[in-house]
Amino acid sequence: MLKEYLKNVRDSHPLIHNITNYVTVNDVANILLACGASPIMADELEEAEEITSICNGLNINIGTLNSRTIPAMLAAGKKAEELGHALLLDPVGAGASRLRTDTALKLMENIQFDVIRGNISEIKTLAKHGGHTKGVDADASDEVREDNLAQAISFIQTFAEETGSIIAVTGAIDIVANKTIAYVIQNGRAEMGRITGTGCQLSGLMTAFLAANRENSLEAAATAVSVMGIAGEIGWNHMKPEDGNSTYRNRIIDAVYHMDGDTLERMAKIKKIENKKN
Amino acid sequence: MLKEYLKNVRDSHPLIHNITNYVTVNDVANILLACGASPIMADELEEAEEITSICNGLNINIGTLNSRTIPAMLAAGKKAEELGHALLLDPVGAGASRLRTDTALKLMENIQFDVIRGNISEIKTLAKHGGHTKGVDADASDEVREDNLAQAISFIQTFAEETGSIIAVTGAIDIVANKTIAYVIQNGRAEMGRITGTGCQLSGLMTAFLAANRENSLEAAATAVSVMGIAGEIGWNHMKPEDGNSTYRNRIIDAVYHMDGDTLERMAKIKKIENKKN
Amino acid sequence: MLKEYLKNVRDSHPLIHNITNYVTVNDVANILLACGASPIMADELEEAEEITSICNGLNINIGTLNSRTIPAMLAAGKKAEELGHALLLDPVGAGASRLRTDTALKLMENIQFDVIRGNISEIKTLAKHGGHTKGVDADASDEVREDNLAQAISFIQTFAEETGSIIAVTGAIDIVANKTIAYVIQNGRAEMGRITGTGCQLSGLMTAFLAANRENSLEAAATAVSVMGIAGEIGWNHMKPEDGNSTYRNRIIDAVYHMDGDTLERMAKIKKIENKKN
Repeated sequence: MLKEYLKNVRDSHPLIHNITNYVTVNDVANILLACGASPIMADELEEAEEITSICNGLNINIGTLNSRTIPAMLAAGKKAEELGHALLLDPVGAGASRLRTDTALKLMENIQFDVIRGNISEIKTLAKHGGHTKGVDADASDEVREDNLAQAISFIQTFAEETGSIIAVTGAIDIVANKTIAYVIQNGRAEMGRITGTGCQLSGLMTAFLAANRENSLEAAATAVSVMGIAGEIGWNHMKPEDGNSTYRNRIIDAVYHMDGDTLERMAKIKKIENKKN
Repeated sequence: MLKEYLKNVRDSHPLIHNITNYVTVNDVANILLACGASPIMADELEEAEEITSICNGLNINIGTLNSRTIPAMLAAGKKAEELGHALLLDPVGAGASRLRTDTALKLMENIQFDVIRGNISEIKTLAKHGGHTKGVDADASDEVREDNLAQAISFIQTFAEETGSIIAVTGAIDIVANKTIAYVIQNGRAEMGRITGTGCQLSGLMTAFLAANRENSLEAAATAVSVMGIAGEIGWNHMKPEDGNSTYRNRIIDAVYHMDGDTLERMAKIKKIENKKN
Repeated sequence: MLKEYLKNVRDSHPLIHNITNYVTVNDVANILLACGASPIMADELEEAEEITSICNGLNINIGTLNSRTIPAMLAAGKKAEELGHALLLDPVGAGASRLRTDTALKLMENIQFDVIRGNISEIKTLAKHGGHTKGVDADASDEVREDNLAQAISFIQTFAEETGSIIAVTGAIDIVANKTIAYVIQNGRAEMGRITGTGCQLSGLMTAFLAANRENSLEAAATAVSVMGIAGEIGWNHMKPEDGNSTYRNRIIDAVYHMDGDTLERMAKIKKIENKKN
């Protein structure tokens, strides 16, 4: 199954509109090209709707948010929703400032996202409609572990039901869930956290998977998480003793470039959990 | 000949002012340093003219265009023209939105560029004063091929005559032409299209070649295209099986860093075509 | 001693707020992660104070300055000072435009920086409250050499006394000084100048060292300079013949990632000079 979702990206070359932060934007563009999609970046209100109209998906990322780009996010998001495009929100740093929290919540009120993807602290902030996080990384106290996994899934599914969006929480253990089904993914390596923007990259990649698999959003989102994690594992295997986080960044994107469906199926550590209650 | 144009860049260390998109700006800076030039980035109206005054060339790239930077582009462009600096326009995504098309046309009306460099779809949009493109990549239907090459050259030379600028169209086959002479360059590899910003990088590089070779703009522009293509070929030869587009990006800039004149002369696949009519 | 300052960064994981240019921001983020710190970038006035409040240090870099971000720099700087956070100014391109010179001076008037770090031309511009530089690189005529070292130290210490800040001047010979003590550091390689943003990266790194060593700012700043230079030396040792400036960038960040205290102590070429007059 996973290999089909990847093949659909490679075959359809979705064009993805990214309104994203300037810190990691280059890596987002390159990972989209690596997976077979095409990126376009445009954050000016005057062209946001028009650019999104020629695309297949929209990835909104609120890192390095500013007053000029928020209206562009809203306009592009509404247009993309109207056109039935794949729509993803990455609430980078929600909880680190009121501006970020409020903007994420405002975007969610005005736009029906297919997926909201963040770390557990960002997602908790949005679920509580406020609160504080320690920067752009998840708080250790919020971490999803084996011993609180069931609880985390339950929390995420409640939030998925409230928002009508798929919620993708990434960390040591990744969870991608709607209100009834949760995928738990255990690919990736802790060292990926030492690279800036692996989360932003995943959001770009996931938007491409959503755009190329409109009928299977939940599975496509879970596949993207697995692709990123496996790329992290393969990239790590190609590291030499002197290589560090900067080379690792290249190695991960390179591994997405070479990802083949059989490897993906073989290496994926993905478990489906159905909520019997619903 | 080609080696002299490269030597002039290395010897004169031109300082190039770039008003360019935030997606690929770091690679533009590094490729300028690789070829022996120096980059400076400044996109604020208040300093645009002053910054361009201390430079030798100006590279205007309209990717991630916004309302704040358009006046800076106009002011810097006029000042650079007044000072006789090398002047290049890269109309990234012209045709993808009215804002981009209109801004490119407005820049062309107000500033006499030495070179306008883009993909064939962007150049067609500008020649038609409008129209639509599919994002930031060329449409397959517009592609320059062996069988439509004469027609493409004729179109480009007509546009060169209209604008008074050298037109550089890059793709599988590259054409750099003024109204009477066209250079057809067949260096490079298709995989360069899987890296974000190889076009933006070429625009930076070309501006350095123009600045260091003010008396031979056409040849300097054609040489820059060849340098980029050959760097793509050399860089590819250094790729290992696991390397993908992210590593390839580094390899190409590295190859520009090491480019020597003899290699350039030996590997260049460049053909001069003179238009007998003129 | 040096190893302790590094260990303190690794142990305390300082969160560093960066208001920095979009050219080199990704490398700044990755070098902060490489040394054990965490980066956050936020340049919007509305969130600048709030973001800086959750951090341990603030790195203000005026490259690609614009009218929107200057008030954010001022607000964040004042808040960081009020909270006793580590505070660094990198006056990129001071002297290249009035906007940059005036903004750097205005920031210095309003905020008490722990360290002002730049090349010698930028520092001279600020010391003279004006003047002109040739872009973002130091003028050759300003260069600190063995034969003018005593004079350079004296100039820097006078400026340190005037500003109450530690002054860090980097170039072929690096000087980090307050009014009474100067550290002269001779690590690094000339080829680091062929990479965009090694100065910006050092500013980020140094802010982390300041934040993790609040009681020993001068030594922490000098250590950061040494770490960067040694990373440049180690990174160079891992270069293959075909590697150029783009790969070198990765190698340097990778070397920071793997830097260990013993290597740092062994390779550091650092000399302490006490000003007997004071």
